Amino acid sequence: MNAPTYAIGVDYGTNSVRALVVDTANGDEIATEVFEYPSGDAGILIDPADPNLARQNPQDHIDGFISTVKNVVIQARQHSAFTPDRIVGIGVDTTGSSPLPVDQNGTPLGILPEFQNNLAAQCWLWKDHTAHAEAAEITALAEERSEPYLTLCGGTYSSEWYWSKMLHCERIAPEVAKAAYSWVELTDFIPAYITGQHNPDTMPRGICAAGHKAMFSHRWGGLPSLDFLESLQPGFSRFRKRYTSKPQPSSQPAGQLDQRVADLVGLPARINVAAGAFDAHHGAVGSGVSPGTIVKIIGTSTCDIMTSPLDQELADIPGVCGIVPESALPGAYGIEAGQSAVGDLFNWFIKHLGPVGHEALTQEALELPPGASGLLALDWNNGNRTVLVDPRLSGLLVGQTLHTTAAEIYRALIEATAFGSLTIIERIEEHEVPVERVVMCGGIAEKNPMAMQIYADVLNRPIRIARSRQACALGAAIFGAVVGHAHRNTQSAIAAMAGTKETVYQPITSNVNTYAELYTLYRRLHDAFGGVTKQAVLGDVMKRLISIRDRARSIRHA
Amino acid sequence: MNAPTYAIGVDYGTNSVRALVVDTANGDEIATEVFEYPSGDAGILIDPADPNLARQNPQDHIDGFISTVKNVVIQARQHSAFTPDRIVGIGVDTTGSSPLPVDQNGTPLGILPEFQNNLAAQCWLWKDHTAHAEAAEITALAEERSEPYLTLCGGTYSSEWYWSKMLHCERIAPEVAKAAYSWVELTDFIPAYITGQHNPDTMPRGICAAGHKAMFSHRWGGLPSLDFLESLQPGFSRFRKRYTSKPQPSSQPAGQLDQRVADLVGLPARINVAAGAFDAHHGAVGSGVSPGTIVKIIGTSTCDIMTSPLDQELADIPGVCGIVPESALPGAYGIEAGQSAVGDLFNWFIKHLGPVGHEALTQEALELPPGASGLLALDWNNGNRTVLVDPRLSGLLVGQTLHTTAAEIYRALIEATAFGSLTIIERIEEHEVPVERVVMCGGIAEKNPMAMQIYADVLNRPIRIARSRQACALGAAIFGAVVGHAHRNTQSAIAAMAGTKETVYQPITSNVNTYAELYTLYRRLHDAFGGVTKQAVLGDVMKRLISIRDRARSIRHA
Repeated sequence: MNAPTYAIGVDYGTNSVRALVVDTANGDEIATEVFEYPSGDAGILIDPADPNLARQNPQDHIDGFISTVKNVVIQARQHSAFTPDRIVGIGVDTTGSSPLPVDQNGTPLGILPEFQNNLAAQCWLWKDHTAHAEAAEITALAEERSEPYLTLCGGTYSSEWYWSKMLHCERIAPEVAKAAYSWVELTDFIPAYITGQHNPDTMPRGICAAGHKAMFSHRWGGLPSLDFLESLQPGFSRFRKRYTSKPQPSSQPAGQLDQRVADLVGLPARINVAAGAFDAHHGAVGSGVSPGTIVKIIGTSTCDIMTSPLDQELADIPGVCGIVPESALPGAYGIEAGQSAVGDLFNWFIKHLGPVGHEALTQEALELPPGASGLLALDWNNGNRTVLVDPRLSGLLVGQTLHTTAAEIYRALIEATAFGSLTIIERIEEHEVPVERVVMCGGIAEKNPMAMQIYADVLNRPIRIARSRQACALGAAIFGAVVGHAHRNTQSAIAAMAGTKETVYQPITSNVNTYAELYTLYRRLHDAFGGVTKQAVLGDVMKRLISIRDRARSIRHA
Repeated sequence: MNAPTYAIGVDYGTNSVRALVVDTANGDEIATEVFEYPSGDAGILIDPADPNLARQNPQDHIDGFISTVKNVVIQARQHSAFTPDRIVGIGVDTTGSSPLPVDQNGTPLGILPEFQNNLAAQCWLWKDHTAHAEAAEITALAEERSEPYLTLCGGTYSSEWYWSKMLHCERIAPEVAKAAYSWVELTDFIPAYITGQHNPDTMPRGICAAGHKAMFSHRWGGLPSLDFLESLQPGFSRFRKRYTSKPQPSSQPAGQLDQRVADLVGLPARINVAAGAFDAHHGAVGSGVSPGTIVKIIGTSTCDIMTSPLDQELADIPGVCGIVPESALPGAYGIEAGQSAVGDLFNWFIKHLGPVGHEALTQEALELPPGASGLLALDWNNGNRTVLVDPRLSGLLVGQTLHTTAAEIYRALIEATAFGSLTIIERIEEHEVPVERVVMCGGIAEKNPMAMQIYADVLNRPIRIARSRQACALGAAIFGAVVGHAHRNTQSAIAAMAGTKETVYQPITSNVNTYAELYTLYRRLHDAFGGVTKQAVLGDVMKRLISIRDRARSIRHA
């Protein structure tokens, strides 16, 4: 048997960055380190005057890499088999779209003395929505010009994405726009930085960010045309001209670890570093994604990642967030969908309306058979990301009586997110991409067995949970192993290193039947309020909810 | 100037009975006494196994009359002008439909030793819903036989009403049904009892109970036909045969105070006692009802009373609870409508979902301009009494975001009840009964200025509040004054004795405009979920709520 080799995965989240040392043979996680971003409010730079604003300090990202990797290597040394020279590769994922402006030397403007206190010069975090007007402008211009750019992102360009944020910066911070030689996604910046590739023109870029957020596609020759960008704002096309790299999947190396960085973290130089991608995509890989499997990264919001083989024809799927070749897995399209509020929805309820916390409400909600509350909700408190792609939607709750309890509403909200998930799965399946297997990862998957059982019953599919609690960082490590040649290809790396827990949430037939009935009502509300149906018949909805409730309660008391 | 005269009003509520001594010249309330029913749970006999059951002990009603009237007379003696012989009349109102079975001597079965512990032998309180199956049966039979009986009660016979309860008793308590010589509404029993008229065949009956709850109308020769009742259950028509009295309005005397009762309460015998009616109708009179005025008795639920002159043609108004000649006011139709949950809706929210109580939420809700929450609710947590007459409806809330607060929802619920009220007013006006004046009485009218301002803005009419905090008991006293000949007629008694407070809630134009916009959305939801619209277009509702919200907030911050 060969000596073991290891890979490092580095996962940049919203509030912290985590590094993981993983055994490439079996995915064993032998060391982990977390670095909480020191700046701002839990790592987020905010503006009290504008709740849409969310930025990060690029220095936190640089310091976070050095700190976590250095410490995780020290920690791994406690394993007798481990030595730093057995690290074969490093993978990186981050939140996104989180672009930052850099100067001609590839230095983030935000760490330059003259811009340190300028919010526009920092990294624009994924959940920054200051660019909503520019997003609408981009969507409108693409429609007006009949450009194909929106076909792969559900028809609407988002305020969270690359070009919207850059354009907003042009408008509101000309001094930053002028100093910005280029803009780079955090997920590309980190691999470039640690491999010492500081020329923005040629720094490595990942296909995941380019395809999902920057409207990059080979269908139309890469990024949106110079003319399109110029029409948005004279001069805006300069950023396309300076983006000459060919975006890569994470199965390809972005470069090798730079000597200077290697010295700081206690590793040998020239270790292969994979091209970066977004956390959800790496999370999907760390959860064992493969064609036929949907991976749901379920936390405050939910990101769904599916793959479909490149050699099979794939229709545009209306309403999904993006379809990008190799964004998650080599040889396959990455299909991204999502729900704007899941954990956030439950937290909202607890914060404003819950008489007790999650645990106590869950205890009570667990006792409720499906349908027994008579309630039905739409999970749109933060708009609908998939399949309606409409931020101007809101929550809805129907079926309340004078006896409705907080626990019943809490459960109805969880059910609503599961119905939303089923709507996404049905949309994908309608386009000939079968969804045979569901794997969950993320906080709610780990911590909320009631939610998992509800999802199993609503989706009518067994729910598996990723074995790793750090599926994103594990996915990054898997790509580290791939670019480090520890495995023949990504698929065999996944087979060896990723997997699911033994516990499987199996659908319970009687629950499945009740939820199927409730789902038809959910879809009718979804289509009516989502504007899909122009002639909605809803006069029976409340009565059907009451009938389902009465039946569910009589069974319980029988 | 003549020596002052007085009238007594006795008002039987759900938990207590109140007596009031009133100066017939000006309505001054010189003494008041309350008697809390000692039996059961705050006066209500319940069955832990059946939440639909709500009964009362008739002994409480008898004791309550003696106690309150005796004490109120003692108390009134502190007024130098008062002497018991200056009492010219007594009026009585009660909840209803609250029928009780009596034996051949007019004695309530519930106070007989052999039935004391039999719940079916007690008074069946208005909110007892055990007879829901029988109500549906009565409605179905009337429809099947194309009987006209339901035309004056909105098309549906209720489980709360007289015949449903009697029929349910036949089915579930044959021993009581057998012992019951007759059934009498509490509102008829009290005047009969205190005037010593114990023969059930001839005991005085009020038109209010007969017309609104027992399907009595001169259109079809009085009560439903023997054949109809017999078809419900063989033998059931016996109760019609034993109901030979001609129902009277409260402006007519039911009889004179019996010597035995007079001795117990310290009054001279032979004082005139008015025919009984339901509390809401007397409340309307105590609030100064007249054609053109709607009186809203607004408490846990709301009862609306309108009147329309008998000499003007009045169409059947679909969806109202009842149209009965002289049920409220002589010479006028009494039109009754209502909302099943008003205060109950607010209490439900506080109990289950309110982080703080009414007062603190109100303080916060007061700061919110109309429309600023982006929320809209349907007030149907307890079904819809008017205009949909459908208990199988439920609550709905739409417009929630991740920032929606409890105070915003609380205010949206209050607004929803106001929109429900406007729907009733519009229905009445569509049938050529103009609603020119709105007077409120009841707990919420007294205690919730924010709700009153919301109603003024939503209804776009000034809201006046009844001067008396005890408008029902005052209404009863007014009829006492009328049968005691202190006034020429009921109208002049009302003019002298009833009135409204000086404070008037005036509509605020900007609020009126916003609410008018929200009301169009309310009506669209109302009609869609109420089954009125078969082809609802709702895709713009959430977006319009967001636009209204954004506008309301920008005005506030401007």
